[in-house]
Amino acid sequence: MNDYSKFNKNENSVGIVKKKQAAFSDKIKLESGMLFGPISIAYETYGTLNSDKSNAILILHALTGDSHVAGYYNEKDIKPGWWEFMVGPRKGVDTDKYFIICSNIIGGCMGSTGPGSINPETSGPYATKFPLVTLGDMVTAQKKLIEYLGIEKLLAVVGGSLGGMQALAWSVKYPKTVLSAILLATTARHSALAIAFNEVSRQAIMADPSWNNGHYYDKKKPNAGLAVARMIGHITYLSDESMRKKFGRKLQDKNNFSFNFNTDFQVENYLHYQGKKFVERFDANSFLYITKAADYFDLAKEYGKNSLVMAFSKVLAKFLVISFTSDWLYPTYQSKLMVKAMKKSGLDVSFCEIKADWGHDAFLLPSERFIEMIKNFLKNTYREI
Amino acid sequence: MNDYSKFNKNENSVGIVKKKQAAFSDKIKLESGMLFGPISIAYETYGTLNSDKSNAILILHALTGDSHVAGYYNEKDIKPGWWEFMVGPRKGVDTDKYFIICSNIIGGCMGSTGPGSINPETSGPYATKFPLVTLGDMVTAQKKLIEYLGIEKLLAVVGGSLGGMQALAWSVKYPKTVLSAILLATTARHSALAIAFNEVSRQAIMADPSWNNGHYYDKKKPNAGLAVARMIGHITYLSDESMRKKFGRKLQDKNNFSFNFNTDFQVENYLHYQGKKFVERFDANSFLYITKAADYFDLAKEYGKNSLVMAFSKVLAKFLVISFTSDWLYPTYQSKLMVKAMKKSGLDVSFCEIKADWGHDAFLLPSERFIEMIKNFLKNTYREI
Repeated sequence: MNDYSKFNKNENSVGIVKKKQAAFSDKIKLESGMLFGPISIAYETYGTLNSDKSNAILILHALTGDSHVAGYYNEKDIKPGWWEFMVGPRKGVDTDKYFIICSNIIGGCMGSTGPGSINPETSGPYATKFPLVTLGDMVTAQKKLIEYLGIEKLLAVVGGSLGGMQALAWSVKYPKTVLSAILLATTARHSALAIAFNEVSRQAIMADPSWNNGHYYDKKKPNAGLAVARMIGHITYLSDESMRKKFGRKLQDKNNFSFNFNTDFQVENYLHYQGKKFVERFDANSFLYITKAADYFDLAKEYGKNSLVMAFSKVLAKFLVISFTSDWLYPTYQSKLMVKAMKKSGLDVSFCEIKADWGHDAFLLPSERFIEMIKNFLKNTYREI
Repeated sequence: MNDYSKFNKNENSVGIVKKKQAAFSDKIKLESGMLFGPISIAYETYGTLNSDKSNAILILHALTGDSHVAGYYNEKDIKPGWWEFMVGPRKGVDTDKYFIICSNIIGGCMGSTGPGSINPETSGPYATKFPLVTLGDMVTAQKKLIEYLGIEKLLAVVGGSLGGMQALAWSVKYPKTVLSAILLATTARHSALAIAFNEVSRQAIMADPSWNNGHYYDKKKPNAGLAVARMIGHITYLSDESMRKKFGRKLQDKNNFSFNFNTDFQVENYLHYQGKKFVERFDANSFLYITKAADYFDLAKEYGKNSLVMAFSKVLAKFLVISFTSDWLYPTYQSKLMVKAMKKSGLDVSFCEIKADWGHDAFLLPSERFIEMIKNFLKNTYREI
């Protein structure tokens, strides 16, 4: 295994940060046609907005992420934000130069309005009365936050996986706001394979009797189903090669099989651990809502009458698109389809496929080349404006 | 979609067949060290054993298969056996020439002794008191059946997926019995990825409260968990490409999203259907036992002190190994590892990777080339003896 510790040194961190909250009393129009509100958005910021407000970067998190991109919540906190190696002083996204914002998506469970939030009409949790929000709706909510912060232009929107899809939606929905977009390990729409994995994960949750049609907030939670869903997810985030290198057929108990249904292989133990850890921090209903939003996302269909080229026709941003060789959830060919359409639309786009064994998760793992690529793209974009 | 109907014409079928049963009162020694019995084996035969008993072929079925390889159970039966296109008069495995046997594996639920069978000591189902049997144990039981049928030599053992693993175990455990082996879409051991998928499937079953530690035979069955397990399986049997071609993003209801958690995409409907159909015919405990046996299987470890070359050192069979390009459950590189070790052991081996979009399931789908390859291999082997 690689040693990533050098990328997360404390002297190079943004240090102590605080989760903030912005509340919007008016309703937003959802893509389903429904009006929904009030909404509340949890967010964090790092660095300082310059006087002409030209250095703001919006980072969009992935499926189970949150607004806590970098730094620590207090001095005893040992776990930094989820992209600590990328965001900080003199890092890939340099907090000495840029003002960075990240908000939790609506529909989530990390501080923004979601199915676990209190429905003012009933004074109980929304549960499955929460509306089905799309990635476009998440972006609409983020736009309100950006306006609330007094920002008119974003130097860049940056995201991996579901975050990359949001970045895509940003560039298309708000072309005048977005100067550039960095899209990592992402896709312009889910393949049948990605939908299939999401649906099986949802079925695992809904098969758990404790799910109770989403109404479990004052009862036993559907942890068994949610853990299975997370295990399925973790298989898709890795790759055949990374699993072979990390686990192979290594046993928990040296050379002995248990000859029962206990955990024999280390890869089983890893999945159990991931499932168990996840249910402590994530809401099963949010998992259902966000995966459904991801499956619905289809840039060409929603914004280009089924043509990706047309979807990009009003976009002004320049792009950096990065895929990873062993990512089989959103494989390179899907990035290439995007890049081809961007080029046909006359957009300025740089594309790179990074050789990586780690599957889809590669965008969450540091490498010098990856960090440098993002640093240089942002530097050039900032110089050009 | 391809039209496979031409391969399943009735005039080319073995016709009406009968499931038979062989019972063995003595115990067999399991690889775990335990003695287990009595056992009963469900099997079918097709064609006629010749006078010198030199034309017997044993077909080994995959994870959820059964002994019903070809033909129909009665005149109203509309569903032929699972390998109808391959087995029959003048087909790939020609019933005019050969005597073909296929038995249900022990641990299964299609007529052979398994966790759903009655434990003579308690007069109730074994449930999870059934011993953990290995693929080697399944082969030990099959050997008893072959002896019972008075057969000393097998012209060929033939199997795909888990059936291929059994064929491998046959060639190694009983080198003097096996003259040739045809291994399709298989592996000499499960990768971490394959173990991971199996374990998540098992967890889905065991997370279902109706599983009740395996004791559900007189109660509500763990159908919800078993359906999720089957859906996971079906994803691994297909491929990104086959799912894209078969389903893409096609919707159940034309262009309309439901904006709820109903089935929107056709691929979701397909998975639901597969899950629902499966629980009607398969026992959840058998699913647990057979997947565990598959995960344990490791030809090099069990029979060659961790060396595949050594595992093959006493083998006398000649081999035909076929992999399929889009099979990501047991990818071609795993077949190549096998073939390399066979060659190093001085064995006669033919290897072919067939270009196929259909993923792991390709060995269950007919193609002229595939059928011809098996027909010719058997013809040459039969001529040589």
